[in-house]
Amino acid sequence: MAVETMSIQLSARGDADVVNITDQVSSVVRESGLNDGIATIFSPSATTALTTIEFESGCISDLKRMFDEILPPERNYQHNLKWGDGNGHSHVRAALLKSSFTVPFVDRRLTLGTWQQIIFVDFDNRSRRRKLVVQVMGE
Amino acid sequence: MAVETMSIQLSARGDADVVNITDQVSSVVRESGLNDGIATIFSPSATTALTTIEFESGCISDLKRMFDEILPPERNYQHNLKWGDGNGHSHVRAALLKSSFTVPFVDRRLTLGTWQQIIFVDFDNRSRRRKLVVQVMGE
Amino acid sequence: MAVETMSIQLSARGDADVVNITDQVSSVVRESGLNDGIATIFSPSATTALTTIEFESGCISDLKRMFDEILPPERNYQHNLKWGDGNGHSHVRAALLKSSFTVPFVDRRLTLGTWQQIIFVDFDNRSRRRKLVVQVMGE
Repeated sequence: MAVETMSIQLSARGDADVVNITDQVSSVVRESGLNDGIATIFSPSATTALTTIEFESGCISDLKRMFDEILPPERNYQHNLKWGDGNGHSHVRAALLKSSFTVPFVDRRLTLGTWQQIIFVDFDNRSRRRKLVVQVMGE
Repeated sequence: MAVETMSIQLSARGDADVVNITDQVSSVVRESGLNDGIATIFSPSATTALTTIEFESGCISDLKRMFDEILPPERNYQHNLKWGDGNGHSHVRAALLKSSFTVPFVDRRLTLGTWQQIIFVDFDNRSRRRKLVVQVMGE
Repeated sequence: MAVETMSIQLSARGDADVVNITDQVSSVVRESGLNDGIATIFSPSATTALTTIEFESGCISDLKRMFDEILPPERNYQHNLKWGDGNGHSHVRAALLKSSFTVPFVDRRLTLGTWQQIIFVDFDNRSRRRKLVVQVMGE
């Protein structure tokens, strides 16, 4: 049993920009030398989140519409009234979707379904460079 | 420390069908021979998700109503316009609720509360046989 | 590699009361003696959940508003009609936000971002004493 902590870096445009990070997580698992275990992906940021989805433009568009409906950017947020940075909706969206995701791997391969990809969603209101933690634990 | 990867199989009717998988996860933990650790349940599918709830018909009905309200099946989805399979709402619901769940166990027992069960939710628009990954890690 | 299971206790007022548990989780990690691994926080309750957020009053208020909008307390819930305890909205909110959270630690420190805290959200409709499981696994 061992633990390996790596990071992956990416650029995101904000405004619910969705980035497919499946290949990068798969690479971390392969390079860890571990056969079976879990990969924990964690985004050390308060305005981003992680989940899985079928990564095709229709699903991505539909996901964004849901967030635009339940947490629209253009309304008042107490966070914005206090801090003036205009990303109150980003914070609540990220808290709802959550910044952590765990996926098992077996024989060095993630156990994802055929149409299922791991995505990073940047809800912030501007472009950012982002760094994610990928920690692999297993044997 | 060791890792054991098992699977559990089930049938689900789709349309936010909720299946209580607590007993199956508990069995995997007991059969692993491990005393303390985590069970990671993962659904390798883009239209299903995992969480906990009090598994009684009222809560299940209320959960379905929420998804029907925030992601109604009968509206237009970009996924449906592209692929024509009518399950655009299923994809977004699954991405929101997420396909992974982790629960600690102690002395071979899941640390669930008395009224708390682990559920699999199949958001797809038809009946399916499903196979979940349950990976137990600990000592 | 080792596993340590601890618990943290807290009081919560209910009604989407948000408690910042970051310091308590950090303490568990430090006291475990492990350097690198994951902390799994789990709430053994059907009306509570865990996530991360920037813990400031604006974000907390905005988070509560979202739940009040998508799952208002004052409407009918099938759970309430069956059980009469008035917390049907609490159950669905908790199922949506989920009762488990996993965060990696490196060199004995949680990998949280600067503005990111781990929160416990009590959705129940009354004050409660709560006990959370914090299980640390690593080396």
